[in-house]
Amino acid sequence: MKPPIGKETNALMAPSLRIGVVAPGTRIDKELAERVARFAADAFLDRAPEIVFHPQCFLNAGHFAGDDEARAAAFVEFANDPALDAIWFARGGYGACRMAEAALAQLNEHACAKTYLGYSDAGALLGGLYAKGFKNVAHGPMPVDMIRPGGEAAVRRALAWLIERAPESVELGLMFDGRSVAFNIMVLQSILGTSLMPDLSGHVLLIEDVGEYLYRLDRALFSITSSPGIRQVRGIKLGRLSDVPENDKPFGTNDEEMLKYWCARAGIAYLGRCDIGHDVENKVVPFGAGTG
Amino acid sequence: MKPPIGKETNALMAPSLRIGVVAPGTRIDKELAERVARFAADAFLDRAPEIVFHPQCFLNAGHFAGDDEARAAAFVEFANDPALDAIWFARGGYGACRMAEAALAQLNEHACAKTYLGYSDAGALLGGLYAKGFKNVAHGPMPVDMIRPGGEAAVRRALAWLIERAPESVELGLMFDGRSVAFNIMVLQSILGTSLMPDLSGHVLLIEDVGEYLYRLDRALFSITSSPGIRQVRGIKLGRLSDVPENDKPFGTNDEEMLKYWCARAGIAYLGRCDIGHDVENKVVPFGAGTG
Repeated sequence: MKPPIGKETNALMAPSLRIGVVAPGTRIDKELAERVARFAADAFLDRAPEIVFHPQCFLNAGHFAGDDEARAAAFVEFANDPALDAIWFARGGYGACRMAEAALAQLNEHACAKTYLGYSDAGALLGGLYAKGFKNVAHGPMPVDMIRPGGEAAVRRALAWLIERAPESVELGLMFDGRSVAFNIMVLQSILGTSLMPDLSGHVLLIEDVGEYLYRLDRALFSITSSPGIRQVRGIKLGRLSDVPENDKPFGTNDEEMLKYWCARAGIAYLGRCDIGHDVENKVVPFGAGTG
Repeated sequence: MKPPIGKETNALMAPSLRIGVVAPGTRIDKELAERVARFAADAFLDRAPEIVFHPQCFLNAGHFAGDDEARAAAFVEFANDPALDAIWFARGGYGACRMAEAALAQLNEHACAKTYLGYSDAGALLGGLYAKGFKNVAHGPMPVDMIRPGGEAAVRRALAWLIERAPESVELGLMFDGRSVAFNIMVLQSILGTSLMPDLSGHVLLIEDVGEYLYRLDRALFSITSSPGIRQVRGIKLGRLSDVPENDKPFGTNDEEMLKYWCARAGIAYLGRCDIGHDVENKVVPFGAGTG
């Protein structure tokens, strides 16, 4: 029996990817959401995903996009929704660590099958998801990157990875590195020793940061490289440390020398530079998925 | 047999306390050292201590008062010197965590008998000393406090405690609190899970900070209150969080509400305010020495 014509036609078309956007930290404006949705439609045409921004993205509770309960509820609702294929975190800011543990405890089998993409503060959730054994967790551009000059390239890269796992979206070194993860340095420091910290044994750890004094990054690297779990990584790669403020006196070493120092002290291999950071060049790092 | 007259006379005079000053983080100027020494002589007259500033205090290596080896060597030299009674950390800044582990491994029995006083970044060393079982470790004013308006009061308080354990130098709540410790929030976060972190079971933990955005303090409190070791404390008290910069949006809660939130989440008792901070009112908190 032939299917109805409409169905037949649909069967020949790949169904649109359905991406749910939530904001575990800081809010975004509706204008940004509309701009990202418009850009996705224009840039991907018949492959364009359907992007659903949860109203929680636009809430305002002090620093946060709604209070902890609202942010957790929106994330759980979208993560558990079988009609959505991926969760894309709207932006970082700060706040994921406040709602992550309660939210992660409520996820179902639909959540487990989904893809999750974000970076910066959202790394607290990415860490927790990966610690829970979720297989499709990735560090990469977010809707908020649209507001950077040239930000369309970052958003296009994220969407191309979500839609079709475009190889050119992925950080190049991962071809050779084997299992990898990526984190913001301050966010990684903050989840050490918590339930959000995944087992990174054998992984290559990619790190980046923005807007931090070198002495603060140095202090965080003391914490990070002192952690017994981190000492099980295969090695560390340095992404971009951008917008480092000038201290009252120069720190005395550059960012790469700083990381080499801590890696040497901790007996961790320093594996060179990588292509991630708080900028439009930020590439996607699927957690655990390297093929090297 | 009578002792020689000179000896007899000396025996009637309390010998001057000999205080060695080293800079485990950032350097100080010679002018500051001279000013502190002069003030000590004027303020304490016949009880005035002899204050010996190690030349390392004035070294300059990028951010630091000499490189890691120089800072460790100066600390070890003075700590191990039987002719010195106390080590007073010149100032914080940043750098103690870089030299602490190597330095602590070299301390001898004379070091064990000494008193150590400082705060802020020096907390990394105080933590490590207390973790090693040293009995006379205290959080309190440093020579650099002299440059604050009214800073003589802070320096006098520190010296009165070093010279004669003046009760009025000590944080008042310690009379009732039992064993206590005090830390800068960011420094405490940085030593969690490292060899510098002491066992704080049953202690009252006093915390303070300066110049940090509330969202950063909130993130650090997530780390701190998530730590299984910290969850063994008797409770946490909040010192002053001073010079908190204005964020692009208000955080939404004040400092005390923020700490109460994290304590409640972690099942830690919040025990109210305490009288420490990066200011001239900063009182002395001898580690472990509460009498409550």
